[in-house]
Amino acid sequence: MKLDNIQSFVPPVRTLMGPGPSDIHPRVLQAMGRPTIGHLDPAFVEMMDEVKVLLQYAFQTQNALTIPVSAPGSAGMETCFVNLVEPGDKVIICQNGVFGGRMKENVERCGGTAIMVEDEWGTAVDPNKLEAALQANSNAKIVAFVHAETSTGVQSDAKTLCELAHQYDCLSLVDTVTSLGGTPVKVDEWEIDAIYSGTQKCLSCTPGLSPVSFSDRAIDKIKGRKNRVQSWFLDLNLVMGYWGGETKRAYHHTAPINALYGLHEALVLLKEEGLENAWARHENNYQVFRAGIEAMGLSFKVKEGDRLPQLNAVNVPAGVNEAEVRSRLLTEYNLEIGAGLGSLAGQIWRIGLMGYASNLKNIWYCLNALKAVM
Amino acid sequence: MKLDNIQSFVPPVRTLMGPGPSDIHPRVLQAMGRPTIGHLDPAFVEMMDEVKVLLQYAFQTQNALTIPVSAPGSAGMETCFVNLVEPGDKVIICQNGVFGGRMKENVERCGGTAIMVEDEWGTAVDPNKLEAALQANSNAKIVAFVHAETSTGVQSDAKTLCELAHQYDCLSLVDTVTSLGGTPVKVDEWEIDAIYSGTQKCLSCTPGLSPVSFSDRAIDKIKGRKNRVQSWFLDLNLVMGYWGGETKRAYHHTAPINALYGLHEALVLLKEEGLENAWARHENNYQVFRAGIEAMGLSFKVKEGDRLPQLNAVNVPAGVNEAEVRSRLLTEYNLEIGAGLGSLAGQIWRIGLMGYASNLKNIWYCLNALKAVM
Repeated sequence: MKLDNIQSFVPPVRTLMGPGPSDIHPRVLQAMGRPTIGHLDPAFVEMMDEVKVLLQYAFQTQNALTIPVSAPGSAGMETCFVNLVEPGDKVIICQNGVFGGRMKENVERCGGTAIMVEDEWGTAVDPNKLEAALQANSNAKIVAFVHAETSTGVQSDAKTLCELAHQYDCLSLVDTVTSLGGTPVKVDEWEIDAIYSGTQKCLSCTPGLSPVSFSDRAIDKIKGRKNRVQSWFLDLNLVMGYWGGETKRAYHHTAPINALYGLHEALVLLKEEGLENAWARHENNYQVFRAGIEAMGLSFKVKEGDRLPQLNAVNVPAGVNEAEVRSRLLTEYNLEIGAGLGSLAGQIWRIGLMGYASNLKNIWYCLNALKAVM
Repeated sequence: MKLDNIQSFVPPVRTLMGPGPSDIHPRVLQAMGRPTIGHLDPAFVEMMDEVKVLLQYAFQTQNALTIPVSAPGSAGMETCFVNLVEPGDKVIICQNGVFGGRMKENVERCGGTAIMVEDEWGTAVDPNKLEAALQANSNAKIVAFVHAETSTGVQSDAKTLCELAHQYDCLSLVDTVTSLGGTPVKVDEWEIDAIYSGTQKCLSCTPGLSPVSFSDRAIDKIKGRKNRVQSWFLDLNLVMGYWGGETKRAYHHTAPINALYGLHEALVLLKEEGLENAWARHENNYQVFRAGIEAMGLSFKVKEGDRLPQLNAVNVPAGVNEAEVRSRLLTEYNLEIGAGLGSLAGQIWRIGLMGYASNLKNIWYCLNALKAVM
């Protein structure tokens, strides 16, 4: 590639129905392009306060420490682990897909010990297995699990898993990257202690930020640490000084101003629609999609009841080249759907109906395009 | 603050002449709002390759591992330290401002030992002091310093400092957050082993990404580590699989698509202008600014020769309320300039002429507005 030949990049216009990013609302894209202001500008500081209130609504929480981390969802995950795990801590991780494995990586890199509770990919986390692990590891400090597994389209019962964690004196740490804004996530009611999400799924926003929220119990653990948090960038003791509370903001890092404009607008859109209405829309559109998929003779990987309405793992029929179908959808129809990850590679497509992408126009387009290429 | 009252955020239009973010080029803002595509889309992957080539040009390097970290400059700093420092490693840090102190934090959080070489804030790093430290610490592994101190507007002699590091078998690790695109930064010629920068200074781009580059020597150290990198998100062994080289991209994290559109456009603009022309523009505009400041009877904190043309520490005259001046410039003139940090708080203003903000219109506006409020 020659430097001289590089021009401005004008992306193709795709329909995004993979596992994320999903279609971005036009108002969000417009917000991204607004004039940048300083990260300590009083107008920006006020916008940050609004983002916190809007995120509290999205997460259904009163937690004061409810902010977007200035980096993608993976950094949100890491924020939770590096702040809460100290060397030697035992963390029980319920794994039923790719992202539980990433949690294990995080725990180990913090010097903790990961106790893995495995469920088959494509099934929900089994609370009985978690309880057995809690009984066998009475000194465990944290229970971590993925509410909505992006790699399989499975939803687990977060409320029950958090209750179990607390019965055994553990903090609960929950991945809601794919659920927030698409299906119910109730931080206070479910007593989630640490939660992270992404912006590029059901919030209809561009990728790059990770909303997080921490309960008072979690903050007590962070403030009572014996060791410094190993990451300076993600150390909540420092980040709180910038995003936090009542006092004057202390400079920590330079916030990604325009990305935050986008998230603010996405959250205003969510508020305008209403959380319950957004959940209902995702559910209703899933029913339309399901009927269409089944009418084509296709089936779902995940059993009814555990399925996420916003992310569908569709079994690739025998004799069909899954990669070719995806490639043709992209090149001939500008339609992106996702491949399987890990042990499900080649076996499933992941078709997202997330956020702004969850609408009838997309669904009918996707069903017809699928028919056309198969 | 009531949820119900929160509306779309329409920022004021400011002139950004602080220490960053600086004014964003309109073409960059336009690029930020373009339609999002998938992070594994072939069109996006090609754009990533272009970003690498453009960054190699900006850094003046052939280093294959030249990429933007998906988070702000502080995360770029952390990327360099967590990948290069292992527990027990001695790192010599030349500190002459705020950001050397942040380097120390990083080293210690990696389990390393920081040997501090102190110079007065507002002066350049003294190579003689570095050499003495290298002689006294023959087992040091890395020499780290800030090329252009954002807190003081001082430029240090990166070439000489890197030469010294190599004479004593150390890797060189250099902060160029404020210099890249504004004054010469020559990674290959100066033999810099690890470098990070920001997008929101002389690149005229929004904040949120951190360009980094690593020499083969640095990569050898990373690949030969005894311990895993403590950050999963910033582990270059994994990031290389996504951004890297010849083979198929492996999913690591979801890239901040639209922020990368912005950086791509900013780098195309830099290429169109030409690096040498950009450096000359920053220098020429500084001369105009300097003449104007001196004509007002004001003086600079940093001695001529060590001064960064793109970031000027102007002494606050006796009897002038520095905070009130900044506040009036912002509210009455929509003009942002910066305060002093740390030990220089209250003593200086930091006035940036960075990237797109380095132009005569801004300079004459700033000089006249300063006159008006003082």
